[in-house]
Amino acid sequence: MKYGIALFPSKPLQDQANSYRMRYDSHYALIPPHITLKETFEVDDSDLPQLLANIREVAKNAEPALIEVYKVDTFSPQSNTIFFKIREDVSLTNLYEALHSDPFEPNPKYGFIPHLTIGQDLSNDEHADVVGRLKMGSFSHQETINRMQLLYQLENGSWTVYETFHLGKEA
Amino acid sequence: MKYGIALFPSKPLQDQANSYRMRYDSHYALIPPHITLKETFEVDDSDLPQLLANIREVAKNAEPALIEVYKVDTFSPQSNTIFFKIREDVSLTNLYEALHSDPFEPNPKYGFIPHLTIGQDLSNDEHADVVGRLKMGSFSHQETINRMQLLYQLENGSWTVYETFHLGKEA
Repeated sequence: MKYGIALFPSKPLQDQANSYRMRYDSHYALIPPHITLKETFEVDDSDLPQLLANIREVAKNAEPALIEVYKVDTFSPQSNTIFFKIREDVSLTNLYEALHSDPFEPNPKYGFIPHLTIGQDLSNDEHADVVGRLKMGSFSHQETINRMQLLYQLENGSWTVYETFHLGKEA
Repeated sequence: MKYGIALFPSKPLQDQANSYRMRYDSHYALIPPHITLKETFEVDDSDLPQLLANIREVAKNAEPALIEVYKVDTFSPQSNTIFFKIREDVSLTNLYEALHSDPFEPNPKYGFIPHLTIGQDLSNDEHADVVGRLKMGSFSHQETINRMQLLYQLENGSWTVYETFHLGKEA
């Protein structure tokens, strides 16, 4: 089954993200606004208990994650994904590192750029339009998230939360 | 903020439910397939820690919930909601009762009919059509769910999981 690990921010930040996602994000209906900590990975049912134990261990040793949105940015030209850029913070970086170090698989493709996606799969023209407009706006939001979620993917592409893990205390 | 409490079944049952929901359920994109344990209720931010403690207490004293789908049914003529009917079981009934007894609000409107919605907001004609067809099919699925989820609702009507509670052991 396909799993992923993400942080869900507070309702105000999710609502703000959704106000853009509803227009610009092809994944709007598949998952609430989130900050991905670990991209889709495959786990056999029989390995799930070990995975849960591993994540629990990471969570226990983690700190609550500081989330500071400070601007809108894009992954262009690599992709037309538009996102709230989140300032690097040791709480977030350590969490990401722990989820990509033994016993977890590393991510050889990308470095960690903390972000919350608000647009994807736009045409080049629309992408340029939207980015141009949003870059002129001012974005500033700060919060601390004290839980991360393990999710699994359904056949329709949507995601269901399997379990919550408290950051920094006994799960 | 608006909260609700639900059980999410396994991927196979969710995938089966979604194969109907994508065609018949107006809430398809708002939440994954679920079994509602407590309908939408309002909680002030300041009361959230107490709510979490209360749910944790219920979860600790609960047993894992036996979910046995045995047919498709409808709430018609009260509403055009179509659902997988779930056999009553003491594990499920006790959990529902605990979430509707002091310190929780009761539900004066309905008795508990355990179900997983697969269609709603259909026209009368389409409703009759779909129910007629699905009632001829054979539905049988059994599983045990050992976690329930507290969710909150975003402004767009969709739901985000706030926290998972293990049924029958320390959360």
